[in-house]
Amino acid sequence: MSQSPLLLQLIDTLCCLPGVGAKSAQRMAFHLLERDRKGAAMLSNALQQAVDNIGHCSKCRILSEAELCGYCSDLRRNDEILCIVETPADVLAINQAANFNGKFFVLMGHLSPLDGIGPKELGLELLEARLKQGGIKELILATNPTVEGETTAHYISEMAAEYKVESSRLAHGIPLGGELEYIDGGTLAHAFNGRQKLNP
Amino acid sequence: MSQSPLLLQLIDTLCCLPGVGAKSAQRMAFHLLERDRKGAAMLSNALQQAVDNIGHCSKCRILSEAELCGYCSDLRRNDEILCIVETPADVLAINQAANFNGKFFVLMGHLSPLDGIGPKELGLELLEARLKQGGIKELILATNPTVEGETTAHYISEMAAEYKVESSRLAHGIPLGGELEYIDGGTLAHAFNGRQKLNP
Repeated sequence: MSQSPLLLQLIDTLCCLPGVGAKSAQRMAFHLLERDRKGAAMLSNALQQAVDNIGHCSKCRILSEAELCGYCSDLRRNDEILCIVETPADVLAINQAANFNGKFFVLMGHLSPLDGIGPKELGLELLEARLKQGGIKELILATNPTVEGETTAHYISEMAAEYKVESSRLAHGIPLGGELEYIDGGTLAHAFNGRQKLNP
Repeated sequence: MSQSPLLLQLIDTLCCLPGVGAKSAQRMAFHLLERDRKGAAMLSNALQQAVDNIGHCSKCRILSEAELCGYCSDLRRNDEILCIVETPADVLAINQAANFNGKFFVLMGHLSPLDGIGPKELGLELLEARLKQGGIKELILATNPTVEGETTAHYISEMAAEYKVESSRLAHGIPLGGELEYIDGGTLAHAFNGRQKLNP
């Protein structure tokens, strides 16, 4: 046992970061200890604070240290449109790219009965309570275009229909800058069926 | 300000890790908070412990939480051969690959007058004291094959000569599995000049 045990422990725990293997973890540990001890202390502190304080917004289930997150408590946002996403990262992506000014609801996953994830795990009773309460005019179902995502969207759209709330799904089609030649058949079929008129 | 400030702080500080940009930092933060809070707490703890306790071995300057590191205090290691390297990562690499049973000395850098790194910053007076004290028969100069590394090796070899201690340099040549066609001229010239006899 020639190597410092605390150093080995640090390298070991750095491996819990996604995309970090033994070699990168070693590089990170040496970098922090040799060149950026201040950064390491700050990172330790930020991690501790985040783990201790960040929970879920009681209204939309996004990661937040406050009872009500910044989106839900923002009075300038439109209460009538609700965008349903799978993860907090999706909220960030939509917020950065789309000019969306409504509220969010984060499922923290998708329906997956085999993994024991049903409507309850996704907080759908919370969503149903909001639909029942009224005031929402449209649900934008922005779950991922996977089998589970589609199923989840379908399930929620039926729930919305019960309360006479419209629901919509993000458009499928050719990504910007893509080349027709390399696009898979399913996407191309969707793009064909969803073609839009020019000079309307 | 819709995003949680503690989350933004965590993403920000994760960027201090080498090779981690804004996008990976975001992915890491979400992964830790959504799926691995226990790992995050452990990482925070490991970082704090490492920053607080890991210093440098008083004899060889390697990262160590003890006054004397595991290599220096290991009685089975040969005291007569000293391998000089630039960083603690080099110690790890040599220890894993070469069947080396001597002691190490870590410079924590290389001579670089323009950056204000002289013999003092590399702890060379510590090395000189050990040479003076006697008992060392060979210095293996395993600094990097760069201009600065070569200069550092040359400087140390002159110091060793004063105390009548032999010094050697790692061999240059063709890497295992390399193809002659793609090897740079400098390396090939070194490999030619350093050719070794078969059936000696």
